[in-house]
Amino acid sequence: MTKTIVLKNRPKGTPKLSDFEFVTEERTPTLTNGEMRLETVYVSVDPYLRGRMSDAKSYVPPFELNKPIHSGVIAKVIASKNDQFKEGDFVSGMLDWKTTQVSNGDGLLKVDKAKAPLSAYLGILGMTGLTAYLGLTQIGKPVAGETLVVSGAAGAVGSVVGQIGKILGLRVIGIAGTDEKIEMLKTKFGFDAGINYNTTKDMKAAIAEVAPNGVDIYFDNVGGPISDAVLFSINKFARMVICGAISLYNATELPKSLSVQPFLVKNSALMQGFIVSNYAEKFPEAMTQLSEWLAEDKLTYTETVVEGFDKIPTAFIDLFEGKNKGKMIVKI
Amino acid sequence: MTKTIVLKNRPKGTPKLSDFEFVTEERTPTLTNGEMRLETVYVSVDPYLRGRMSDAKSYVPPFELNKPIHSGVIAKVIASKNDQFKEGDFVSGMLDWKTTQVSNGDGLLKVDKAKAPLSAYLGILGMTGLTAYLGLTQIGKPVAGETLVVSGAAGAVGSVVGQIGKILGLRVIGIAGTDEKIEMLKTKFGFDAGINYNTTKDMKAAIAEVAPNGVDIYFDNVGGPISDAVLFSINKFARMVICGAISLYNATELPKSLSVQPFLVKNSALMQGFIVSNYAEKFPEAMTQLSEWLAEDKLTYTETVVEGFDKIPTAFIDLFEGKNKGKMIVKI
Repeated sequence: MTKTIVLKNRPKGTPKLSDFEFVTEERTPTLTNGEMRLETVYVSVDPYLRGRMSDAKSYVPPFELNKPIHSGVIAKVIASKNDQFKEGDFVSGMLDWKTTQVSNGDGLLKVDKAKAPLSAYLGILGMTGLTAYLGLTQIGKPVAGETLVVSGAAGAVGSVVGQIGKILGLRVIGIAGTDEKIEMLKTKFGFDAGINYNTTKDMKAAIAEVAPNGVDIYFDNVGGPISDAVLFSINKFARMVICGAISLYNATELPKSLSVQPFLVKNSALMQGFIVSNYAEKFPEAMTQLSEWLAEDKLTYTETVVEGFDKIPTAFIDLFEGKNKGKMIVKI
Repeated sequence: MTKTIVLKNRPKGTPKLSDFEFVTEERTPTLTNGEMRLETVYVSVDPYLRGRMSDAKSYVPPFELNKPIHSGVIAKVIASKNDQFKEGDFVSGMLDWKTTQVSNGDGLLKVDKAKAPLSAYLGILGMTGLTAYLGLTQIGKPVAGETLVVSGAAGAVGSVVGQIGKILGLRVIGIAGTDEKIEMLKTKFGFDAGINYNTTKDMKAAIAEVAPNGVDIYFDNVGGPISDAVLFSINKFARMVICGAISLYNATELPKSLSVQPFLVKNSALMQGFIVSNYAEKFPEAMTQLSEWLAEDKLTYTETVVEGFDKIPTAFIDLFEGKNKGKMIVKI
């Protein structure tokens, strides 16, 4: 038998456990040529999945109701009639939230357990690392000596963005929601300064204080009032990489923020939405760079690993309360 | 004697006549070597000047209180001890709101009355035309067949942007505030469609209807609710040229609008503030192109000409009620 998680309801506001349903099905009995059977090992839960649970027009089609949800997954090949993959191989790719599933191998990559822990292929050597590296370099266009502010800095992408910023010679400021996270940004990830938005009354003043030369690059994972506050410190020709807007994803009405137009005009500044899949032709170069920095211990990462297939919906929901440090992963 | 207009108060909200003061001074009696005496012929009043009347940080320093305001001016040389300019020449440049003034020629360009009407050098062959051409081409990066929406479309810059859009093979939609302006956009400037925001209840639906293939480029002069409505129709990789935000300039509190981040992320879209002076190295190429199109009758323009030096403040204030069609100019 195989357990599957399907989308039961399109969430209103913050997703609830009742928006998900566990379904048990019989396994496909036999494999045809080219197919293989996969056993799920790690599942990545990510804020962007929230968007796919709504039926609004977006860059990827929405999940269908009563169909399995899918996300980044590491799986083990437990039987194979596919020439490219053999029993015992590990693969990464976009796969269903199922304990086991059959695949023809399309879109899957073999991953090497000897080179890095398997879960790293969902994080720093997967979409997380690619998003951080390509968002920062392709839109942020960093120049050594500039100031970078990262929101959602203790999250999976944010913590990598900050470290890459330091490697590239930037002054790096992180914004996160607990003192423990701020401490981690500074001690573990090498950020120059951090701001706890939950205990800071005047975010505008706090940002101005830690960014005395203004903000040249803003890597934004959150949107909302935090991003409003950053606007007051942006420099001429500032680049704002809009990678996510987690503070707005669960809004039930269209959220409002400070009008950005006057800030953009005054500073000849840029805001650009970033989706990593638009930069697929740069993945090999980015992977090479990330692997190199990881091997040289210039990059480190944090994971929040939750155990058990049944915990996938909870782990996903917890993202919106910032319960994760770094990449949130479910180990099956 | 020379009349001068100085900034008496920093306006709160919409500028009032009492924010300006007329001062009469004696002329500088004699010219030293390199100087010339100019008599003002045309004065350009533009929305961006509102920003310089506040003391907020911006891309240009604010006007000083009790000092003359300046803007784009066409003046006649009435006496000269400068080798570059002789009596009878006409010049354009950033000059004070004075009936006569002395200049050493710095930053002034000679303009040719035989090639185009003098006032055109404040408009289509001046900052207006350069702003339209460079904003559209450098940030909008138009590709024939795409859809362009222009807000403030009947204004000085907007009406030129739309015409250049047509020359470059775009579907062009203009947003303006009266039926008369919409008619002018379509008949005089060749726009494909127009929307009167004052009589349209559902701007979002109206934009979707005239842009059935979505919006690839938005040339924004206004900000506020009109720009909010456009967001719902933007296509993947849309470019929004943020050239001005006239609807927000007189706000006395920081204005709010729909949060743009979710729209930018969903569509991998870009918003970028545009200031023409950042593109000075492209002025010669742009001027050549604009002059060529003007000579070929591919471009036309509208001016609202107000007569009398004393009317400068009124003409400026009228901009914020959309009383101008095309470039607002005061003839002295």
